Amino acid sequence: MLSPLISELIDALRILPGVGPKSAQRMALHLLERQRPGGLRLTKALESALHRVEHCRDCRMLTEQAVCRLCQDGSRDDGALCVVESPMDVIALEQSGCFRGRYFVLLGRLSPLDGIGPQELGLPQLISRLRDQPSITELIIATNATVEGEATAHYLREATRALPLTVSRIGHGVPMGGELEFVDGNTLTHALSGRRPVP
Amino acid sequence: MLSPLISELIDALRILPGVGPKSAQRMALHLLERQRPGGLRLTKALESALHRVEHCRDCRMLTEQAVCRLCQDGSRDDGALCVVESPMDVIALEQSGCFRGRYFVLLGRLSPLDGIGPQELGLPQLISRLRDQPSITELIIATNATVEGEATAHYLREATRALPLTVSRIGHGVPMGGELEFVDGNTLTHALSGRRPVP
Ligand SMILES: [Zn+2]
Ligand SMILES: [Zn+2]
Repeated sequence: MLSPLISELIDALRILPGVGPKSAQRMALHLLERQRPGGLRLTKALESALHRVEHCRDCRMLTEQAVCRLCQDGSRDDGALCVVESPMDVIALEQSGCFRGRYFVLLGRLSPLDGIGPQELGLPQLISRLRDQPSITELIIATNATVEGEATAHYLREATRALPLTVSRIGHGVPMGGELEFVDGNTLTHALSGRRPVP
Repeated sequence: MLSPLISELIDALRILPGVGPKSAQRMALHLLERQRPGGLRLTKALESALHRVEHCRDCRMLTEQAVCRLCQDGSRDDGALCVVESPMDVIALEQSGCFRGRYFVLLGRLSPLDGIGPQELGLPQLISRLRDQPSITELIIATNATVEGEATAHYLREATRALPLTVSRIGHGVPMGGELEFVDGNTLTHALSGRRPVP
């Protein structure tokens, strides 16, 4: 009963996470009925971000800058590097305020069946960085507590064994099978302070 | 900590109804990390809809066509016209399948303090239509059961008193399948005062 352009807008909104048919409908009509300036702003913001946001040269965080703010920030601790799966994890850790070092974002986790190996996760780049930057003395592996996250952590531990590093795995607090981005800041703080060396 | 374009995208997503800071963040990163083709599709759909969707000449429903599908549909009953506040109401009624007549969408409700009077709601256009189209014999007022919706219904009833029409107001009260204890006091009051004899 709706016109083609409205139906297409509703369908397109459904690619947003957590948006079902009913809320997509509500969003589309809200934009068209009451929020055209906001809708235009969203169009422009989407277009700019999709065309210009890439990954930080150093840490692979999402950014439109060559080097992201976190890597540029001179006040951070160069001694510790925390490896996470996704940009959402960086945000979660930053919002908890429990970590002041540097990051490396894998943009995934090892998943051979999906064709995601060390290369896709930038692991050669990470290993070179750990080797070439002697200021880094501690590596914190904060991949998710899932099977694939654990496999990735294990791989990383083995691949860095020859380097003079303290390697730890983020520990207590993250529920097994849970994903970092859905964990509250308190739990994250606890998990980070309770990290254990990986033997 | 996020780059300007990502922050702006997160802010822009918050104009969507029901989207708070946390889910806007998740949406933005999801689009940038995993759903760029979907994001581009959404950009195009938004742009087209915002530029081309206007209102149906006859019923004021949202559509990019001069006359909407519902008004064009020759199989519908020309005898009954249902007046609603918003396009969402048309969709709700259509999805219930309980009405096969025509619609008129006010795109609001009387609200003098906000400068919304009969003119803004297209009431002169509606009255002309009711006068000029003798096929219409029944007017159903389906504005919301709010103070403003009731005031709008009252105005409409008075404005159409001279016309040879059956005018009805949709019933309000405890929703079917609803339990009394979960219905708000206002609804209960209304339901009680609107009680009808059981034959
Ligand atoms: Zn960076
Ligand atoms: Zn129409």
